[in-house]
Amino acid sequence: MSWDGVCESLCPIARALSVVGDRWTLLIMRELMMGVRRFDDIQAQIGMSSHLLSTRLKRLEEDGVIERRLYNARPKRYEYLATEKGRALDPLILMLRSWGLTWGGYAPDDAPAATLVHKQTGELVDADWRPPTEGPRFSFDDVDATLSPAWAAEREADRVRFQNARKRRATGIVAA
Amino acid sequence: MSWDGVCESLCPIARALSVVGDRWTLLIMRELMMGVRRFDDIQAQIGMSSHLLSTRLKRLEEDGVIERRLYNARPKRYEYLATEKGRALDPLILMLRSWGLTWGGYAPDDAPAATLVHKQTGELVDADWRPPTEGPRFSFDDVDATLSPAWAAEREADRVRFQNARKRRATGIVAA
Repeated sequence: MSWDGVCESLCPIARALSVVGDRWTLLIMRELMMGVRRFDDIQAQIGMSSHLLSTRLKRLEEDGVIERRLYNARPKRYEYLATEKGRALDPLILMLRSWGLTWGGYAPDDAPAATLVHKQTGELVDADWRPPTEGPRFSFDDVDATLSPAWAAEREADRVRFQNARKRRATGIVAA
Repeated sequence: MSWDGVCESLCPIARALSVVGDRWTLLIMRELMMGVRRFDDIQAQIGMSSHLLSTRLKRLEEDGVIERRLYNARPKRYEYLATEKGRALDPLILMLRSWGLTWGGYAPDDAPAATLVHKQTGELVDADWRPPTEGPRFSFDDVDATLSPAWAAEREADRVRFQNARKRRATGIVAA
């Protein structure tokens, strides 16, 4: 099975992986789910090259997982949003989170990177929480998220590092 | 964020993806979950090079997701099994399957590649089925799977193609 041909496999797991089975892709979806919509902001958080991010966003748009929306006419600037097909990945991303919380090598007293509280039920959405079997599928819109100070700092540091690197490139100063 | 450093991110989604966010990896786990345990049999089904498969299996063993077991002493031959950490990926793989069934471009009358029936409840585990919120987490051991004739044929064709390619290499005849 080559990856060009994977979509032709009859297996739904293989088909799903041919669209989202790339770690960058699901990190992009994590950013969209967190409300980060603009190219530079996504890039700052996940640290891909512009070229690679641009390729992935185009592919996700072709696959119908995200859509572009013009937010600035001159110069043309787009933001990116998950489509219905993209939002349907939320239960999958929640499962990734649960597995990561359990098996990701955290110390017992580590604060979670984000505390999620279910809006309707008030339940804590932790590693053991499971989506209801009835009603609409789980969506990250169903929860209120609070970032831990440590993860907020990690994200802010990524943002600053990205901006500084861009400034250095713009002024022609290249780090040794 | 470089992938060498991803495990140090505080985000559990990023940590999970640093272990399983590779499409090959989850296809390897699909094979183990289906009871395919031996190197050549896994390779025949997912079509990776020996080198790449070997690297991935080593990495998964280091990450504690699979374990090797000697099944033949001379020559030394190993089979691969999911550990508890690996089996904990079952709910994630089930979600991938659901998403693939819904969004994978199937025609309405396409037979599913595998029909899964929950052993305890007799329910059909289709795209809409969701794991119970109580009791043990979902495991593929909980279901009886029947492959569709078409998917069984796809898998058999992959197996034959792989064996023929190996025979050609062994006899020094290279396909034009």
